[in-house]
Amino acid sequence: MTYCVGLCLDRGIVFMSDTRTNAGLDNISTFRKLHTWQLPGERAMVLLTAGNLATTQAVVSLLEERTKAHDERDPTILSVPSMFQAARLVAGTLRDVIETHASTGQRADSTFNATMILGGQIKGGPPRLFLIYPEGNFIEASRETPFFQIGETKYGRPILVRAYEPSMRFADAMKLLLVSFDSTIKANLSVGLPLDMCIYEADSMRLPSIHRIEADDPYFRTISDGWGDALKLAFESLPNPEI
Amino acid sequence: MTYCVGLCLDRGIVFMSDTRTNAGLDNISTFRKLHTWQLPGERAMVLLTAGNLATTQAVVSLLEERTKAHDERDPTILSVPSMFQAARLVAGTLRDVIETHASTGQRADSTFNATMILGGQIKGGPPRLFLIYPEGNFIEASRETPFFQIGETKYGRPILVRAYEPSMRFADAMKLLLVSFDSTIKANLSVGLPLDMCIYEADSMRLPSIHRIEADDPYFRTISDGWGDALKLAFESLPNPEI
Repeated sequence: MTYCVGLCLDRGIVFMSDTRTNAGLDNISTFRKLHTWQLPGERAMVLLTAGNLATTQAVVSLLEERTKAHDERDPTILSVPSMFQAARLVAGTLRDVIETHASTGQRADSTFNATMILGGQIKGGPPRLFLIYPEGNFIEASRETPFFQIGETKYGRPILVRAYEPSMRFADAMKLLLVSFDSTIKANLSVGLPLDMCIYEADSMRLPSIHRIEADDPYFRTISDGWGDALKLAFESLPNPEI
Repeated sequence: MTYCVGLCLDRGIVFMSDTRTNAGLDNISTFRKLHTWQLPGERAMVLLTAGNLATTQAVVSLLEERTKAHDERDPTILSVPSMFQAARLVAGTLRDVIETHASTGQRADSTFNATMILGGQIKGGPPRLFLIYPEGNFIEASRETPFFQIGETKYGRPILVRAYEPSMRFADAMKLLLVSFDSTIKANLSVGLPLDMCIYEADSMRLPSIHRIEADDPYFRTISDGWGDALKLAFESLPNPEI
């Protein structure tokens, strides 16, 4: 499994992913699941990936290679005219990769599946965030559903639902995501540190470097340790029932 | 799905279950998933059920019927000498029911499956809590793992892990379970009100009547509304990162 979140704010989009991959309980490795493309000043995009690692790596490699083969007729992620077209490109690539593997005789339904979150902005359009399904279709975040999670989504969802505000500052959003990731990491072996984070500031058309949060990151430790105490205090602040 | 929790405390065991059943998104109904047996002063037991409703109802009916057929040689849940034997009896009944249905040609692995939590006390032994698997085997709660969840367990787990204390009073445990259930109900359509709760006080060998918590229960509303605010305050109390 995996845990990734893309969170739309009024002032931009915040992306976070874990880096653990596993095959069953073995083959634990660390791989990047947060990928970026940009033409600074013109477009900036972040892709989060969950699912079969061979599939997600193939998709990212194909997208990457196409940006370097300039003479192809097909548009690349660095040349598509809109974020909607970027989502179509990623979704189509994902579906093709899955189909290629699935049609070779393997029968298991979900073996090669992957799900992705694509967010960013292309000059002339607003920042947009998409959730891309293995079938090659996708949905877009909206005012009512302003964030997407993929992978091991359940443990970290309640705090996102309760504490998210579209007007949040980036620092608050980072704190919120760390709490959500910490709850997930504490409950599920397939989600693990380090974490990758990328903050896209609306209308900047450029991405800062990816911020990697290691297990010994002092701020992560503060949140991880502090959240348990804060939760207990919150719990104690609620009135007791009469039994 | 379903959500049920059995929680061992120093002073007894608290049981809570939701009551929603569903087949896919349709056929939403309300059914009891918390069942009790007792010989006041001698034994008291609570069974929580999750999974295929036909299976769980058959198991409960079989256990119930046997207590009324006095001339059978097999022990009943009201005559077994220990909680361990009670767990064996329930587990064996569960496995038999699943086998009966599964051997009639149906192929789907989990269609008839169910999982159960059995807790209680029989005079001469301590209070014990078991998690019973559809295969007919079971595990027992311990100091290190003092509670079991079945059904839709993930959303409500973080708060249990963080706020549970074995020395809790029953009122605090009820509050904790309501927070855990509220988080689950807010996130998953297959878990719904009303809730059933039963508190077993250690060495009492008797059960109070089941406490049903309806959607308009004033204390549940207080917790459900108050927890969002308390979480937000807890979240705000954590320090912000420097970005």
